[in-house]
Amino acid sequence: MTEDLDALAKELDRDHVFHSWSAQAGLDLPVIAGGSGTVVWDHAGRRMLDFSSQLVNVNIGHQHPAVVEAIRTQAAELATIGPATANLTRGRAAERILSHAPAGFQKVFFTNGGADAIENAIRMARLHTGRDTVLSTYRSYHGNTGAAIVATGDWRRMANQYARGHVHFFGPYLYRTEFWATSPEEECERALHHLERVIQSEGPATIAALLLESIPGTAGILVPPPGYLAGVRALADRYGILLILDEVMAGFGRTGRWFAFDGHDVVPDLITFAKGVNSGYVPVGGVIISEPIAATFDERVFPGGLTYSGHPLAAASIVAALDAMQSEGIVENARRVGEDAIGPGLRALEEKHPLIGEVRGEGVFWALELVSDRESRQPVGADVIGRLKKELVTRGLLPFTADNRIHVVPPCVVTDAEVEHAMAIYDEALTSVEGDGH
Amino acid sequence: MTEDLDALAKELDRDHVFHSWSAQAGLDLPVIAGGSGTVVWDHAGRRMLDFSSQLVNVNIGHQHPAVVEAIRTQAAELATIGPATANLTRGRAAERILSHAPAGFQKVFFTNGGADAIENAIRMARLHTGRDTVLSTYRSYHGNTGAAIVATGDWRRMANQYARGHVHFFGPYLYRTEFWATSPEEECERALHHLERVIQSEGPATIAALLLESIPGTAGILVPPPGYLAGVRALADRYGILLILDEVMAGFGRTGRWFAFDGHDVVPDLITFAKGVNSGYVPVGGVIISEPIAATFDERVFPGGLTYSGHPLAAASIVAALDAMQSEGIVENARRVGEDAIGPGLRALEEKHPLIGEVRGEGVFWALELVSDRESRQPVGADVIGRLKKELVTRGLLPFTADNRIHVVPPCVVTDAEVEHAMAIYDEALTSVEGDGH
Repeated sequence: MTEDLDALAKELDRDHVFHSWSAQAGLDLPVIAGGSGTVVWDHAGRRMLDFSSQLVNVNIGHQHPAVVEAIRTQAAELATIGPATANLTRGRAAERILSHAPAGFQKVFFTNGGADAIENAIRMARLHTGRDTVLSTYRSYHGNTGAAIVATGDWRRMANQYARGHVHFFGPYLYRTEFWATSPEEECERALHHLERVIQSEGPATIAALLLESIPGTAGILVPPPGYLAGVRALADRYGILLILDEVMAGFGRTGRWFAFDGHDVVPDLITFAKGVNSGYVPVGGVIISEPIAATFDERVFPGGLTYSGHPLAAASIVAALDAMQSEGIVENARRVGEDAIGPGLRALEEKHPLIGEVRGEGVFWALELVSDRESRQPVGADVIGRLKKELVTRGLLPFTADNRIHVVPPCVVTDAEVEHAMAIYDEALTSVEGDGH
Repeated sequence: MTEDLDALAKELDRDHVFHSWSAQAGLDLPVIAGGSGTVVWDHAGRRMLDFSSQLVNVNIGHQHPAVVEAIRTQAAELATIGPATANLTRGRAAERILSHAPAGFQKVFFTNGGADAIENAIRMARLHTGRDTVLSTYRSYHGNTGAAIVATGDWRRMANQYARGHVHFFGPYLYRTEFWATSPEEECERALHHLERVIQSEGPATIAALLLESIPGTAGILVPPPGYLAGVRALADRYGILLILDEVMAGFGRTGRWFAFDGHDVVPDLITFAKGVNSGYVPVGGVIISEPIAATFDERVFPGGLTYSGHPLAAASIVAALDAMQSEGIVENARRVGEDAIGPGLRALEEKHPLIGEVRGEGVFWALELVSDRESRQPVGADVIGRLKKELVTRGLLPFTADNRIHVVPPCVVTDAEVEHAMAIYDEALTSVEGDGH
């Protein structure tokens, strides 16, 4: 019976569901029917350790009871209401979000996800400055809609370049430096120099915004060197450009801080969020707006909006998720587990496995950069990642992979025991693939 | 106590919530705390008849028990899961949607709302045809993201023209004809001639898609004359162009049919949906894909996607909403009420009130076009609409207004008695505004 449900789920999926970022033929996707904390399972009860947090969004873990209950309660009261209303749950969600933002942030514009958060942040920046160009990095992902996908730097932009006004630059990434740097200090200094040269060459007076992920996520969990983000802020100020920090993936606990930029001595003008704010229990995203930009639209019509802006179910889940993360010390747990368990565990794997070229990250936001040769740093091919993925899944771990990397990104509630279990699985899987002569 | 909650909702909203399509200062929005069917109320229990369906999305009415229960049940089982999984509820939602689509539609790509449905339909059309240009009408609204907003024809596009490859044409609208037509037949024939001339002048081989709302909604509920949509299909076929019908507002019962195009002897290549599919109880939208376009992406990677694609809460609410609409005859109710009550009621108002220039619509999808002079058809100004809106709200009716129009768009479950009540309120409000010498 339960086996039949798994078969039925696969059949309906294959026949009728069109999937993101994929060729559709021959997809063989795991059936997921339920979950709890760091674990998910299919209808037959086969359990998997979720070290992907799905798309790095289930920060609070699967099926957190307080968030589930808040959704159930709000659904019974008022599941939906249009944006041109005052709704108490929505107001409380905005208040909660702002309580974690730096001083000077005043309002929240709610969207359906990260992509339209970026769309609207760009819109605000262009209208506030009266300028056009948006600078973002090649190593970035900002979403799949018209402007968001062209702000994106990676391959996903290539087929979608229908928006104008986007220019890309290189961010810091010492392991594969674009600047012939040999230390974090040099990488930082040269990356800032490069950015300033791009600003000067594009013409500062044409540039509305610098748009960066505080820590580029899918691009490789590229923790910027100390001083970089503060240096970007200084460049923005020097040239009268707004700074938008994209915290869609890195925000709300992932790094062991509420916002990833919190540790970087920087305050942006606009913050975009989604994912961790409610762990994706209900689709939502948004823009946190600083006072001067909010004031621009006091008397001037903001030309953006959407039917589900400030959706009550999403708002209820935000309030519950942020309250639980605070009262249960979930952000602190992410930091502690990162320092005590994941970091040391991954470094031990690095010692043992020549496939690992670099370990980097913080909190529950880590990348293993896999190389066929440590000297040349040649990335492993898709075949190695494919085999590794299979070995991990076979052993009961749901991994997140991107290019030549494994991202180790469990929920913020992950325990030391679960990390230990996962490290053993990564170890075995790496050994197995290395044994194949990868 | 309950009064305090209303005051608190207003205060939090004013201080911290940034609103769609508005100047933010001085917004005075109604507090909504709960609802049922066609009625909503604030914390103090003040009831309003919702003849807006919010943003024309609550087709099944507020708080339909079966949809609420489906959300509550799914939340307890599995609130969220990533798109790269097979999920039974998601598969069932796709199956339900396809069961209402014409033969030849094979798959559903789920998005977060209508805008990203349009984004992805455009993406599919461009990649399937290898062509660039998208033709849509000036009188249209297709969403607020990068490409969707430039596909949009109305004023909301003006501030947002950062996407390329969009060209606009005029659709049929006999009351304000662009073609000097004097009958529906002439309007249809000339609108098709105009569209063909635009296609020829742009160069047919450059055009990926014709994108139309089956019935343009916010632009004025512009029911196309008989033969127009079939004529557009014929032009698309003649020039090898895809036809995307946007059913975001018109679909899933609004017209008294499952899809608005069902009555028009036309089958599109792609259908976009949102709103009515689950009445917005959980944010969702999507693209219904015909077999040849689905097949394009069997072996070729589709370069689009999103974290919340096929969200289980949304999927559960779709299954429940479509099942309830079918088993309870809700679509049929919309048709019957439109024919028996709303249509006759509005025509009676038209007889009596010189402010009404035209009544048009079907199902629960009607517009009153207000004019200061019936001969010249001069639209009334924003001041008249503002006063009318106030008179309606004072009398307990939540209206939908756009430009010089009132859209009469209650939930599909509206009763004859509620329509009668609403007609009395519209009557009084029109009388009051006319008495001011409008």
